[in-house]
Amino acid sequence: MAEAVRHDKTARQLRLLSDALDTGRLGPVRRLVNTLSPAEIGNLLESLPPAKRGIVWGLVDPEDDGEVLVHVGEDVRESLLAEMDPDEIIAAAETLDIDDLAELADDLPDTVIDEVLKSMDRENRERLEQALAYPEDSAGRLMNPDVITVRADVTLDVVLRYLRLRGEMPDHTDHLFVVSRRHQYLGRVATNHLLTHDPSTAINELIDDEQPAIEAEMPTSMVATQFSDHDWISAPVVDENNILLGRITIDDVVDIIREQAEHQALSAAGVDEDEDLFSPVPRAFRRRVVWLGINLGTAFLASSVVGQFQGTIDHIVALAVLMPIVAGMGGNAGTQVLALMVRGLALGQVGAANVQALLWKELRVALMNGLLLGSIVALATFLWFRDPALAGVIGAAMTINLLAAASAGVLVPLTLKRMNLDPALAGGVILTTVTDVMGFLSFLGLATLILVR
Amino acid sequence: MAEAVRHDKTARQLRLLSDALDTGRLGPVRRLVNTLSPAEIGNLLESLPPAKRGIVWGLVDPEDDGEVLVHVGEDVRESLLAEMDPDEIIAAAETLDIDDLAELADDLPDTVIDEVLKSMDRENRERLEQALAYPEDSAGRLMNPDVITVRADVTLDVVLRYLRLRGEMPDHTDHLFVVSRRHQYLGRVATNHLLTHDPSTAINELIDDEQPAIEAEMPTSMVATQFSDHDWISAPVVDENNILLGRITIDDVVDIIREQAEHQALSAAGVDEDEDLFSPVPRAFRRRVVWLGINLGTAFLASSVVGQFQGTIDHIVALAVLMPIVAGMGGNAGTQVLALMVRGLALGQVGAANVQALLWKELRVALMNGLLLGSIVALATFLWFRDPALAGVIGAAMTINLLAAASAGVLVPLTLKRMNLDPALAGGVILTTVTDVMGFLSFLGLATLILVR
Repeated sequence: MAEAVRHDKTARQLRLLSDALDTGRLGPVRRLVNTLSPAEIGNLLESLPPAKRGIVWGLVDPEDDGEVLVHVGEDVRESLLAEMDPDEIIAAAETLDIDDLAELADDLPDTVIDEVLKSMDRENRERLEQALAYPEDSAGRLMNPDVITVRADVTLDVVLRYLRLRGEMPDHTDHLFVVSRRHQYLGRVATNHLLTHDPSTAINELIDDEQPAIEAEMPTSMVATQFSDHDWISAPVVDENNILLGRITIDDVVDIIREQAEHQALSAAGVDEDEDLFSPVPRAFRRRVVWLGINLGTAFLASSVVGQFQGTIDHIVALAVLMPIVAGMGGNAGTQVLALMVRGLALGQVGAANVQALLWKELRVALMNGLLLGSIVALATFLWFRDPALAGVIGAAMTINLLAAASAGVLVPLTLKRMNLDPALAGGVILTTVTDVMGFLSFLGLATLILVR
Repeated sequence: MAEAVRHDKTARQLRLLSDALDTGRLGPVRRLVNTLSPAEIGNLLESLPPAKRGIVWGLVDPEDDGEVLVHVGEDVRESLLAEMDPDEIIAAAETLDIDDLAELADDLPDTVIDEVLKSMDRENRERLEQALAYPEDSAGRLMNPDVITVRADVTLDVVLRYLRLRGEMPDHTDHLFVVSRRHQYLGRVATNHLLTHDPSTAINELIDDEQPAIEAEMPTSMVATQFSDHDWISAPVVDENNILLGRITIDDVVDIIREQAEHQALSAAGVDEDEDLFSPVPRAFRRRVVWLGINLGTAFLASSVVGQFQGTIDHIVALAVLMPIVAGMGGNAGTQVLALMVRGLALGQVGAANVQALLWKELRVALMNGLLLGSIVALATFLWFRDPALAGVIGAAMTINLLAAASAGVLVPLTLKRMNLDPALAGGVILTTVTDVMGFLSFLGLATLILVR
């Protein structure tokens, strides 16, 4: 129900906009679009088919262009950039903070990057180049160099006068960072402490040096974990010599958490997370057909197992009717275990220390599932085909396959992780291959042994 | 790779802890545990089998008990509460803020709640009762009543003196809220503005009244969207008369975003999000068997389609060997579309306005997939069975089923949404039922028409 409201609201905007676009009167569209935040505009653009998207993009306030580009997926970003001329792109880039520019840089043409770098003052140019020197998906790319630093030996009074002179503070500044003469990170002071303490207090009385700084090389997924484990709003980033480079703020971390989550849900289904609703058809085709091709290979593998038992099926056609049930139920049960394991691995909750206990627990659950569902399947089969031996075979095969599914559900993702492969992406195909093969093999194999002759 | 690092770090802690537990020397375990934040302790407890979990839980600093309970899943929470006596639970509850208490309240025994309420002063008791009066998953449950309010007509100087007198500010205070004499919400003032403006400035010169307050009835999923669309750190919560009730902070919103994401990934696999790695076996069995039972019903439905063609299969056994391929590929392709649609629906990007364009796009992708994969399947079938007609039938059936899969992938989640059902949960079963039935029907039906006699 919760989601329905959200959906209704945005869907209403979408319908209003779509109607206005159809009438061709762009004034109302422009007014509607420019009441939205850049993130909301990005969301809206992603929901529009390419032709309408182009029209709406032309109506967005150029001031917001840069921020909107940061907030959309890669495919949409590319389609938006394709409609801008280099001057517009440069103007959009110039409205952005260094961290947003660093994120966008990979999608911008080199000529544009050169222009943007040229238009910057030397300090910002060096900062951007520094950020780009760190690998994608590292803290160095995520950080914003715009921080307020203070020395440990001054009093609050001095800091307060400095801040009033400065007049503005970067967004989401909840701490000032205390640095040494050589700009090494020493600790932080909550801006709220500046308000609640006497102006004669010295900074070094308020300094909090408990929180370690984030190293610029740290992967963003670990940054996200640190933020949510410690409820941070912002955190300092340092290089390998503990020199303060910048800070990461929670708004960027929220985006990472969302992306990680989307990655798990989409890659389990074999979809690239960069794909959006209206990705160009040839590109969507190319991305998806790879996944389907892999699945086709494994499907032939499972079929070849069935192929071994053609004689048996020729004998008892009912086996062909029933065999998808055994294979499919194994796939369903294994997918449940896999999903729990993938979450556990992402949270770091699964390792050599508890795999044995996990496997044992899942085997017990599978045995209970197997006994109950196997009995139901056996009963249904008996009522359908009036063959008690066939009923016994399918019940036993089902139990065997559910046990295999539980083992594969625990061991496949762990093995993939150990091989540095993504269990969310590859786990599903391998798992269903195991459950298909085991399902056909146990059912048709038992049938051959027990029912034929 | 990113995840590998995170995993290695926590897995190392887990192994250290597990080894220490095995030796029975609890001193090192206690030291290790108490260097962690409550969220990290929660994560660790979730990764331990019940017996070890109980031992470690006994070693956690009682000061942290309450926070840890807030940070674990429901099944683990229940197991932890079961090991505490009422006095310990009451002591733990007393360390918590109102919003955390409200979250925990549903899992606490009534007698404990009564005790906790009794131990509170009247103001806090009323606040907790107020929060509990709002529905679960609403802003009213999420808010913390601990806010700093000011009047519009005072100067900064007065506010600064008040704050120094107060001495402390609630965590994550980035704004003071401006209220009327009747405590109605008028706007907010960034705490950082208090630092950068002259003390003689009046509050009403700094007031930001652009951001609408959140209504206490707003669903938490919409709260999360508002926060990430606007990059908020905190937001005021009001009742239907615009009376300020409290505020919501980003750390709670991050938890909601994580939970929503987990919900999508787990419910697609048919797992309850409250289930954790070591949920008790009977409970895990009960939860999962319901899902598997539903799938069993749909599997029999698909089988009954096959049952209609027993005569055809009896004639050409190769059909039994190949039919799982056609059905399975439809399921894989449809799941890709479904995953994109579920994400689009969650983001509010899909509605009546664009469903036609989406369907048209997906049908084109499916046609390209069908032509390519259908040809490959036909070729492989010809090479395997040396039967050109059979090869033609499977290629055509595959293309038909991929088109059916695309249509179902678009329309099933939309229809479920319109019926107020969760597309992430129910979409998969219905989709694969469609693709199984259509796969068997098109393949065996075409074979009957073309190949038999």
